[in-house]
Amino acid sequence: MREVFVLGVGMHPFGRFPDTPLRALAGAAARAALRDAGVGPREVQAAYFANALGGLLTGQESIRGQIALREAGVAGVPVVNVENACASGATAFHQAVLAVGAGACDIALAVGAEKMFVGDTGQTLRALAASADVELTHDMGLQFTAIYAMRIQARLASGSLALRHLAEVTVKSHRHGRLNPYAQHRKEVTAEEVLASRPIAGPIRLLMCSSVSDGAAAAVVCSAEVARRRASATAIRVLACQLRSGALGAGREGQLSTAARTVNAAWEQAGLGPEDIDMVECHDATSPGELLYYEDLGFCKAGEAARLLEDGDTCHTGRIPFNPSGGLTSRGHPVGATGLAQIAEAVWQLRGEAEGRQIARARVALAQNSGGWLEGDSAAGVATVLAR
Amino acid sequence: MREVFVLGVGMHPFGRFPDTPLRALAGAAARAALRDAGVGPREVQAAYFANALGGLLTGQESIRGQIALREAGVAGVPVVNVENACASGATAFHQAVLAVGAGACDIALAVGAEKMFVGDTGQTLRALAASADVELTHDMGLQFTAIYAMRIQARLASGSLALRHLAEVTVKSHRHGRLNPYAQHRKEVTAEEVLASRPIAGPIRLLMCSSVSDGAAAAVVCSAEVARRRASATAIRVLACQLRSGALGAGREGQLSTAARTVNAAWEQAGLGPEDIDMVECHDATSPGELLYYEDLGFCKAGEAARLLEDGDTCHTGRIPFNPSGGLTSRGHPVGATGLAQIAEAVWQLRGEAEGRQIARARVALAQNSGGWLEGDSAAGVATVLAR
Repeated sequence: MREVFVLGVGMHPFGRFPDTPLRALAGAAARAALRDAGVGPREVQAAYFANALGGLLTGQESIRGQIALREAGVAGVPVVNVENACASGATAFHQAVLAVGAGACDIALAVGAEKMFVGDTGQTLRALAASADVELTHDMGLQFTAIYAMRIQARLASGSLALRHLAEVTVKSHRHGRLNPYAQHRKEVTAEEVLASRPIAGPIRLLMCSSVSDGAAAAVVCSAEVARRRASATAIRVLACQLRSGALGAGREGQLSTAARTVNAAWEQAGLGPEDIDMVECHDATSPGELLYYEDLGFCKAGEAARLLEDGDTCHTGRIPFNPSGGLTSRGHPVGATGLAQIAEAVWQLRGEAEGRQIARARVALAQNSGGWLEGDSAAGVATVLAR
Repeated sequence: MREVFVLGVGMHPFGRFPDTPLRALAGAAARAALRDAGVGPREVQAAYFANALGGLLTGQESIRGQIALREAGVAGVPVVNVENACASGATAFHQAVLAVGAGACDIALAVGAEKMFVGDTGQTLRALAASADVELTHDMGLQFTAIYAMRIQARLASGSLALRHLAEVTVKSHRHGRLNPYAQHRKEVTAEEVLASRPIAGPIRLLMCSSVSDGAAAAVVCSAEVARRRASATAIRVLACQLRSGALGAGREGQLSTAARTVNAAWEQAGLGPEDIDMVECHDATSPGELLYYEDLGFCKAGEAARLLEDGDTCHTGRIPFNPSGGLTSRGHPVGATGLAQIAEAVWQLRGEAEGRQIARARVALAQNSGGWLEGDSAAGVATVLAR
């Protein structure tokens, strides 16, 4: 595999955009990424398009990427539509990195987009439930928030987390999101407001949840030669990008989680470990999920997530900021776009361009995206290590 | 890119299987391919899963591959769900070839599966229509058979094709399909029966159409080292595998079609041309479409398709057999499976294992898969050149 670089990134803000169709969201993000990379649409040699819910919510299947990419003037080249539930965006990025790494092309575009507002929240929730095995979960009425709730409830029961930690990590999430112009929720909240907000699936409350959201994000990846020629000062190196699916027997005692196996593979590819990382974008589809990832990704030992949070290590000005973008809970979680929004945030932070929310010492970043649910664990996981 | 080989292929027969869910169809094909390759499920290092209609027809989206591949014992490894309408299967194959070619893995599995029988043909047709731009085509009521019909009608009007050619190519398709144990339609038909069958979209008649079908196909691809170690006698070399999407201004006068651009790229990669090919599996979603491909893929000049057919060149015993499997019209066209069924047929023919339908001199084969419809041409195309 050749070295691969991120040459440019772009986003359409996340939020409620009832008058903006999927193709327009995607087109805006793709155009922004191309502009940021200094690459014309006709220079793109391959494109990967991620969208998880469009088929069920808009009736458009199968050639979503070909339709959306035309909005950015990209056509004719290889286009692959990819899905991996909430990890679709990072899967598209992974495949673009693979195409450039293989030498199949020198410039590839990855775009993730989602249109979740269709006027009927029930329809959106049913589409989201199709990211689990519907033969099993439809009868159970299982929703993703309930899955998080059960995992968090077990931690409350064991005493390693308390309700105040769920509130505090949510306060942190919204404090970060307030600083991000692309975020859906840009308002600080207090711990009292979090714990007084509507219960969704005990102990998860409304302000702890990512919301139904529209948005898109994109990245242009390229070979070392293109990076050198075009943007040696701002190109960000892909040290690792690993994709895994859920293992047989996932979720059982003693079995490593999909996220842990994925990030371990990324550490091995990069020749780095958690101690080398300056910031993390992780998949907090509910804000308390971030606490589980502290441990799962190896940033503290099992049972020590509460201390990492209490010490302020993971806040914006801390030792190892988690989700400086606001993460899924505050930036918003338009499913297919999230993985690429994580890449965009990491690139902006590494370049020193995260205006208003720039963290210190950002040299190496981890982006971690999870997707779907199968037999007790994420069905897909992607871990990406980027360095300036 | 490293050399890539096909180590094994497998299929679940195409047809009506009302009691067999998508995951069981896919699992059967994947297990057959692994058995054929002599590869255990735990040796698979990456998997690509193609399915076009499952979201709209079964409600299962996003993690269809992770669910289906467990039926073959494949889990934990990178799994990517890909869509490109009727070219989804070959797109999965293309990505598997890319992963091995890149050196990202040594053994990859590509599986395509479709479950089209859901008890309501109208629902199936509406799902199929989502392979075009639904914002444009839903209002028009445009279906894929009508698109073929318009193209064929223009050829009838110009005099380069006559009704008898549409009948004869259909007779040939069903004659080939009769010999294929995996085919949906295994009954010969006469030209009179073809022209007397129910009109679907003038001049296309029922017997000229591929049918609603269930089925699956799979291929195991590997590096040269694995091929040498495991199956030097039966491994089939991938000389080229190219994917393209529809160009801007596709379908306009003087613009090369998606299929032509794709196959031209494959000729360039393989260093070969039509004169080097011993057999072709092409995307005849209606049987007269095969006549258009004779010209589009460069096997005769524009306007000479009728003569190629009349001379018997493209029949089973001819100079350059087209669709010895029966093609989409007779083998059946379970959308996401078709591209991989073409690969399977080519592999069996090249190995001399196409019992009862084996063609002579099969050393180099072309498989050509088209998908979707956008702005007057296929939204996706894949062309693969294989050699023994």
